[in-house]
Formats: sequence, C-alpha cells, structure tokens
Amino acid sequence: MKLNVADQINVECYEKQETSGGLWNYTWRTGTDLYGEHVHSSMYTNLWLAGPKEGNEYMDYSYKDHFGKLLPSYVPREIALQYVNGRLTKGKCGDMKSLVHFRHVVTSVEYDNDADHFTVWIRDLPGNKDNKEIFSHVVVASGAFYVPNSPSFEGICSFPGRNIHSYDFREAREFAEQTVLIVGSSFSASEIAVQLIRFGAKHVIVTYRQHPVNFKGTRSIEERPLLQRIDNNTIHFKDGTSADVDAIILCTGYLYHYPYLKGGLKFDTGVPVCVMPNKMYKGTVYTQGGNNKLLFIGPFESYVSFSLFDVQARWVYKYILGQLPNEPSTREEMMKSVCEWQGRFATLDSIFAKITFQKDMLIMLAKDVGYPTEYVERTFAVVFQCVSDRMENTWTYRSKAYRTVFTDEQSPAPEVRWDESMDDDKLVKQYTD
Amino acid sequence: MKLNVADQINVECYEKQETSGGLWNYTWRTGTDLYGEHVHSSMYTNLWLAGPKEGNEYMDYSYKDHFGKLLPSYVPREIALQYVNGRLTKGKCGDMKSLVHFRHVVTSVEYDNDADHFTVWIRDLPGNKDNKEIFSHVVVASGAFYVPNSPSFEGICSFPGRNIHSYDFREAREFAEQTVLIVGSSFSASEIAVQLIRFGAKHVIVTYRQHPVNFKGTRSIEERPLLQRIDNNTIHFKDGTSADVDAIILCTGYLYHYPYLKGGLKFDTGVPVCVMPNKMYKGTVYTQGGNNKLLFIGPFESYVSFSLFDVQARWVYKYILGQLPNEPSTREEMMKSVCEWQGRFATLDSIFAKITFQKDMLIMLAKDVGYPTEYVERTFAVVFQCVSDRMENTWTYRSKAYRTVFTDEQSPAPEVRWDESMDDDKLVKQYTD
Repeated sequence: MKLNVADQINVECYEKQETSGGLWNYTWRTGTDLYGEHVHSSMYTNLWLAGPKEGNEYMDYSYKDHFGKLLPSYVPREIALQYVNGRLTKGKCGDMKSLVHFRHVVTSVEYDNDADHFTVWIRDLPGNKDNKEIFSHVVVASGAFYVPNSPSFEGICSFPGRNIHSYDFREAREFAEQTVLIVGSSFSASEIAVQLIRFGAKHVIVTYRQHPVNFKGTRSIEERPLLQRIDNNTIHFKDGTSADVDAIILCTGYLYHYPYLKGGLKFDTGVPVCVMPNKMYKGTVYTQGGNNKLLFIGPFESYVSFSLFDVQARWVYKYILGQLPNEPSTREEMMKSVCEWQGRFATLDSIFAKITFQKDMLIMLAKDVGYPTEYVERTFAVVFQCVSDRMENTWTYRSKAYRTVFTDEQSPAPEVRWDESMDDDKLVKQYTD
Repeated sequence: MKLNVADQINVECYEKQETSGGLWNYTWRTGTDLYGEHVHSSMYTNLWLAGPKEGNEYMDYSYKDHFGKLLPSYVPREIALQYVNGRLTKGKCGDMKSLVHFRHVVTSVEYDNDADHFTVWIRDLPGNKDNKEIFSHVVVASGAFYVPNSPSFEGICSFPGRNIHSYDFREAREFAEQTVLIVGSSFSASEIAVQLIRFGAKHVIVTYRQHPVNFKGTRSIEERPLLQRIDNNTIHFKDGTSADVDAIILCTGYLYHYPYLKGGLKFDTGVPVCVMPNKMYKGTVYTQGGNNKLLFIGPFESYVSFSLFDVQARWVYKYILGQLPNEPSTREEMMKSVCEWQGRFATLDSIFAKITFQKDMLIMLAKDVGYPTEYVERTFAVVFQCVSDRMENTWTYRSKAYRTVFTDEQSPAPEVRWDESMDDDKLVKQYTD
C-alpha cells in the first residue's frame, strides 16, 4: 500500500471515515460513529455550498471535466462530493482512492527528538487492531470543522427546548412551525437561518456579537444583538428586548482540536478556528514541535478551500523533497515570518480583510510552488463578488452565475431559485445525467 | 500531588471533567465539551435513579451519614451526585477530591515490554500542555456509558424528524406534544419513555428486539416488535404494522471505547457494554496486553454500581500490593477462569440471569478481599425486588421503600409519587435541608 510519489516519497494516507469526501459526506449520526469515533462530518440534508463552484475548483480537474457540462455556480452538497471524489479516482494521477487506508484512525503522533522521526499509532477500526509506524514527516489534513465551539450563556442549563450546535444540525424540517434562536452571524448562522425558513420554521431570530448578517429580502428572519441570559424559554438580548423560542442552535464555529498530537506537537487545542493558526509558518509548518516536519493542509477558516488546499499540498510536497531552497531551515527564522503574519492577523476587522489576508497567504504559497498567481487573483475575485452578492440578498445570491477561473467560461444561471427547488436529489440527478 | 496509600502505592488520578461525580454531573452540552473533548455525561434533566439507593450505597459512608436522615429509596440524580461527592470529601479517608487532577485527560497509554512499565500521556486541558508519565500499573475507572451504540436502520438517513441516541437526550420537555419512537427495551428505553410522557409527549412507541418492557399501568406508551424500515416519517415494524412519528430516540446502549489504550492494550473497542467484558480476568485484569497490570474498575452493564466498584477498587488495591496470594500470576492461568465465566455469560437469557451472574462475580471478588458477602447478598436482594417491582408497574415502582443493606433500617415511602413531583430541585432542597 505504499504510494510512491515521483519515486521519492513514500506516503501512507489514513482516513477515519469509511470513504473519501471528508466532511462532504452526510451522516445521520451525530457525536460518535459506528466505531465510537467522533463523527467527522457536520453536514445537514439539503445543504448548498455557500460559495460558488468557480471559487472552489481544482486547476487540474474542473467541474466540467467531471460532469461533462457547465453547471450553475451554486450547487447542492452532493455535487461537491461527487466532484472531489471524481478528482480522486479519475484525476490526473489516476485512481488515488485505492491507496487510502479507510476506516483507519490516527490515534497518536509523537516526535522522537533523538531519532528525529515520528511514531504514529494507527487504529484499524473494523479490524480492532492498533499498529505503530515510523515516519519522517506527518501531514495533518483532517480539516478544521468537526469539533464545535459551544460557548455557554447564563440560564442555558435550564432552557426547556432543544439546544444544539450547528455541528449536530442535520435536518431543517425538524424545526417546522418552531421559533428558533440562532447564535452567531457567520456562514453557518445565515445558511441555517434561511434553511430553517425554507423548510417551514415559523420564525428565526439571529443573535450576533459584533455585526448583523443583514438578511435583506429575507422573510421571517430578524436579528438582535447578543443574548445576555436565558430564563426558561425566554431569551433576553443586549438591547433590552426579549423573545420566547422553541429551540437554540449555536452557530458559534469550531475549535482546533488534534488530540492525537502529543507533547510539543500539540497545536492550539481549544482555540477557535481562524485564518491564521498560531505559530504556523506560512499556515503550513508547525514551528513549536522541536522540528519543522509536522505539516498542515487546510487548518483554516477558509474562503477558497479547494485551491488553497491544492496549493498547500503542492507546497508540502516540495518542502519535504527539499525543493524550496529559499525556505528557512530553523525555527527562529520561520518565527520572524510567523510574527509578521500574526501581527497583521491581529488587525483584521471585517470579512473582506480576512479574505484579503487569506488571498495574500495563498499568493505567497503559489509563488513558492509555481502555481499561477493569476488564478489565485481570479479565484478571489469570484469570492469577493459572491460575498458582496450575498450581503446584498441572502435569498437570491445563489441565482447569480460567474465565469470559471481556469477556462474563463460563463456558467449558466440556475433554472429555478435554489430555495424554491425543494428536492435536491432531483436536481443532482438532472446535473449528473 | 502524589497520593500515598498505606505508604505503599503512589497514585495519580486524572479526570477529564472539571469536577468529581462522573456521569452524575449534568451538562447541557452534547457531543463535545468546552475543550473539544468527548462529553462524558449522558445525564438528562429530571433523571431519577432507576434503582433504589439501598442497592447503590457504600459500606463505609451511607446516605444517612451524608444527609443526616433516611431518604426514600428512589431519588433524583442530584442526590446521587451529592452523595458520591460527599464520600469523596468527607468519607473515611478525608478529603480525597483535592488529590485528583481535574481537567486532565489521559490521551495515550502504551506498555513497554522491555521496561515493564506504562507510558501515559496526559493533557492538561486548560493549560493546553501534554505530559508523559511512567507508571507500573494503570487502572481504568472511566465508566462504560459515554460512547453510544447507534445501529442503523433502512431509511433512517431520510427520516425528516429528530433522531438522537439517548446519550444526547437532555430534556424531555423538548418532545412535548410529539409522538416519539424509542428503540430498545432496557433501562434507558423504559426510563426515557415514562419521562417523555411525564413531561407532555403525546404518544410513545417503544420498539424492542427481543423482549417488550411491558409498561403496565402506563399511559400513552405502546410497544411493538423491532422496526424494519423507515419511510419518510413512517416507521414499519416487524409485525407488519406502521406508525408515523415525530422523533426517534435510540436507546440502544453503549460501546466499549478506550481510544487511549494503545497496541495490545486495546480492549474490546466497538463491542456493546455487557456484564462480562471480553478476556477480562474477574472482570478486572485485562489479560491480553502482554502484562497483567492494566486493571479496570466498573467496565460493566452494572446493576449495583457503587458496591461493585467499591469491592473492585479494594481488589485492585490488594492485587497491586501483592496481597492476593491465591491469584494466578500468568495469563494462561487467568484465561482458564476467563473461559469459564465467558462460557456461562454466553448462556444468559434474561435480566435475572444477568443480575445473578453479576452477583456471583461480586461475591467472588468480595471473598478475595474480605468484604462481607452477606452485604452482597442483601444488596442483590434489593436489586431483585426492585426489578420485579419495576416489571409490575413502571410508573409506581418508585413508591416502594426498602430496608438499608448495611444498617437494616426501613427507608420511608416518598410523600409524593415521583412522576407527580414535577420539580426535582424543590425535592432535592427538601431532602438536603
């Protein structure tokens, strides 16, 4: 099962889930899976991508390559899942899926300073066996949206209704006819708010800490400043108002959490996921582990997931092979760059500032590996446009269609508005026929 | 922070939760906690002990010692929590609580065969630090009811209502006016069924695999043989009937799951929790780890938790000190006994058979450590009586009162029937004033 990349790196890839597709896989299970492992996916039924596919496409395998035609810019979850799985099995490298050890969970990664290598424990879940392997480098590519950040509020303990984190949200129809409080104002919050109304919730109140979402054109959704306390089923907000609700959904983001990284390798556990993970050189090399060989792909609140992960993967590959001669080799040198980026990170005060920050980081990585920066520029142009369209109208922004980044083609507008197409399966069938 | 037991054992005790009381602590959180760790507690509000306190009492610290008076036999969760915490701080050994490392989670236990010791990784959660310690023995006493067993059923993926495991059940009032399907027929199933009706559910259907609970005297609860498939919100049962439900609660038990036990130490991961954990000598010594020094307290589906854990703790203590001279020292000898017990375990066909099995195991351990077996007999007599009373009437059995095991006193009958006392806090206040 050794994968030989360019005859130079032996790679072993362990994946906890039973198949590929990461968090794009939907499961009805919450909390723990069949094997008692933490459920990785936070998907819900009828989820649509919040961003357009043009901002989430791979240079070497397009949506058109996979589906044989141009699809509208905004698509349901299943389309993204089929697309990433298509690249894995039919992309430039051939069938990569068969090389992955599925249902194998990494349970411990420890660095041995004297031997200068990592000891990795892997559990074969169905086989119920543990094995120890030695590696020179470890790449953590397990995503960042699977351990919920659930802040507490006064009185939450005795709230008589349902109270979950968006990680456990599976099905909007469960909240039909209800009044639901959503805590948060980022993507999960606004997406779940409209999803609830789409599937019959009576009323949704979105409570924000800093900035309202501004649900222009949105029926039955109102916004209020942060909740202060909960008294039975009555929520009291910062502006002195109150409201009775049936359920609470915490859309309060995720925590960095890598329990298998031991000793000095532990990284930012318990810190909310953001665009600049702490002490991470170029968002990729962990600098505090007594080595520079623990690498990360995608440990971000990300706005352009696919191209960001792709470029980071290329960077990691070249870094391990020593093909990035200008990179510093010591922790001290790396930390100079880290401090600069962290300094800038501390000043970010809007979503546009965060997106620009991520764009600049991606351009830096792209330059290192020879990935055309014009593609990065164009990808982010689509993202900026999407975020603006979304701010303009949370309900209708998915009717927009953008030009593809890599082939500069105009994607078609959808035939039906996303929220009026209640049967995603039918639509997926139409797109994939 | 070393605890010196009888000047002979240095003990370090690590506890993931922020305070003592184990699963008797209630949290509104489901899935993961503040630190992203798996939530340990599966408590729900207004839970009452399914068994009488006379069957769950410590020989060296009685409920009367703690509360200053005899309480009725059946009590709400908070009473059990106060009682176990009372023993920890005011019991015969003085304040033991201050010796526990709270908010410290054990993340890895590995046995080194050459050195004949365990390497244990411990994470200080608020401090976000990992430390490695060496131990000659490891005692796993983390309980067995925190990783849900969630079997799948045809069509469950597209069920439009709420679908949770009892591990995530927090509040019966969330299901007011609803029709709820409960899967399972053991304690969680029957307790949650009556709890749902107690707090306003319209109708509860309990679907069983082998034996019905038989809810005599119970309003609005019916039983049907195992569900076969789910078609939208319609449940189809084995007897050909069907029913529409609003929500599903899987009361399908728990899995053994100790992800931190590495290599040969891994134990029965993914197997449902039962009265005879696999390859475990006297239910206490794990025989497959290349050593006989990985010990367990309480890895059971248990009917007499407190005295069972107490006797097992006494046994473990003497075993580590070499004060059990008749115990075999090799794995092979231990396996002879294991095979006998496992053979008998395979024949158990009723709850009474399982209880008798556990009683016999506890008597064996009690004899080893000099714990009076008459107390074991009397504890189990109470348990048998309780189970019979419960079978007689699921609603009224908590009005019964039993004699205490250790002091042979008659506990008083409750003033109000448990399900008519809707305010547990008020009752707890009355009991603890």
